[in-house]
Amino acid sequence: MTYCLGMNLDAGMVFVSDSRTNAGVDNIGKFEKMRVYARSGDRMLVTLSAGNLSVTQNVLSLIEQRARAGGANSVWHVDSMYDVACLIGEAMREIQRRDGDYMRKNNIDASASFVLGGQIQGEPPRLFMVYTEGNFIESSHDTSFFQIGEVKYGKPILDRVLVPGTPLDDAVKCALISFDSTMRSNISVGPPLDVLVYRKDSFSIELQKRLEEGDPYLILIRQQWGEGLRRVFSGLSGPEWA
Amino acid sequence: MTYCLGMNLDAGMVFVSDSRTNAGVDNIGKFEKMRVYARSGDRMLVTLSAGNLSVTQNVLSLIEQRARAGGANSVWHVDSMYDVACLIGEAMREIQRRDGDYMRKNNIDASASFVLGGQIQGEPPRLFMVYTEGNFIESSHDTSFFQIGEVKYGKPILDRVLVPGTPLDDAVKCALISFDSTMRSNISVGPPLDVLVYRKDSFSIELQKRLEEGDPYLILIRQQWGEGLRRVFSGLSGPEWA
Repeated sequence: MTYCLGMNLDAGMVFVSDSRTNAGVDNIGKFEKMRVYARSGDRMLVTLSAGNLSVTQNVLSLIEQRARAGGANSVWHVDSMYDVACLIGEAMREIQRRDGDYMRKNNIDASASFVLGGQIQGEPPRLFMVYTEGNFIESSHDTSFFQIGEVKYGKPILDRVLVPGTPLDDAVKCALISFDSTMRSNISVGPPLDVLVYRKDSFSIELQKRLEEGDPYLILIRQQWGEGLRRVFSGLSGPEWA
Repeated sequence: MTYCLGMNLDAGMVFVSDSRTNAGVDNIGKFEKMRVYARSGDRMLVTLSAGNLSVTQNVLSLIEQRARAGGANSVWHVDSMYDVACLIGEAMREIQRRDGDYMRKNNIDASASFVLGGQIQGEPPRLFMVYTEGNFIESSHDTSFFQIGEVKYGKPILDRVLVPGTPLDDAVKCALISFDSTMRSNISVGPPLDVLVYRKDSFSIELQKRLEEGDPYLILIRQQWGEGLRRVFSGLSGPEWA
């Protein structure tokens, strides 16, 4: 399984992804799910991927092959994040056309999705989610984050804490708590976690870090959060009727 | 959607269910998903149901028709919770045989599930989960709760707080927090909530209560929990590297 999270906030963007893949619980591997395309002063793009690993890898290979070829339809040349989302959607359709039916014939789930975020000169930062079918949606002020993969366990904390005005360091904390809840409830989501922070209009990466299993900060906030929750829980009023 | 939760703890059992059903977000109804079969001093059984409403209602109608008929294969006559789980599994298979193919032909999801819990004289309290296919599993000391329906949003709090030794009033609080998280993140789960508390070896219902929308206690713990979480979140150490 996979969990990936992208946020588009007033101050900038935060991306976090786990690194676990599995084909059954007895076949667990590590694959980085975050790709970064950054050209200082011009553009900073991040993709996060979930779903069938052969599909997402093939989509990214096409994207990268075309980026290297340097044609107009490359992530280095298009003028907007919207156009980048279109490129990913088209590559997704190409792979689904080529491989999808062969997989479905053997009851293999060919679904896959991407979170795409970043900023290109001349635009504000933008965040997209691209579906298996190649269509996509964009975040808005009301919905400042997208999740893909195992999304539910980690959503309540985002719903409660995250607002567009959340500062980037708080957003990182919130994202890591969201991952902690997910990793506790689904063992097929796990570290290392890749974290990337982008400050609006900087056109360079503010922070990119890999948190390994046993990372001291992950352990610290897991412990503080767990203890804090239990403390809040103990302090809740009981029902008079119970 | 639906969310139902049953707990089997050292002190007894707690059951909570929501009351919302939907066939699309524009067609939301209220149906109680908790049924109780209690005969003081002899047995106390609770079923919670999720999934296709026609399937779960039909299964329960068969169970109740047979209970009224008074034969040996009735929930009032069998000697163990295991036998009650078998009765539900058999009724599930009967309905699936009769209706399942007709539904699947029209791409209607015929899946359904039950949580069954309670105690019959001569046994400890037992908790089961019955699947669409009529097979079932039983809870153990390691797994002291079962959820059906929209299970993920409300699971982290259970994973963090609930242990077999949790007192019944704390277990009720924990269940309601779990429901609150679920209702915040999925609007198709909603009040009224039905709550039932059973104390081990009492063979009578300790508490049965319906919490309506706007119930003062629901509002109170929602507020205390939300504020508490945000307070714990603010108090978390920031990452030195961010």
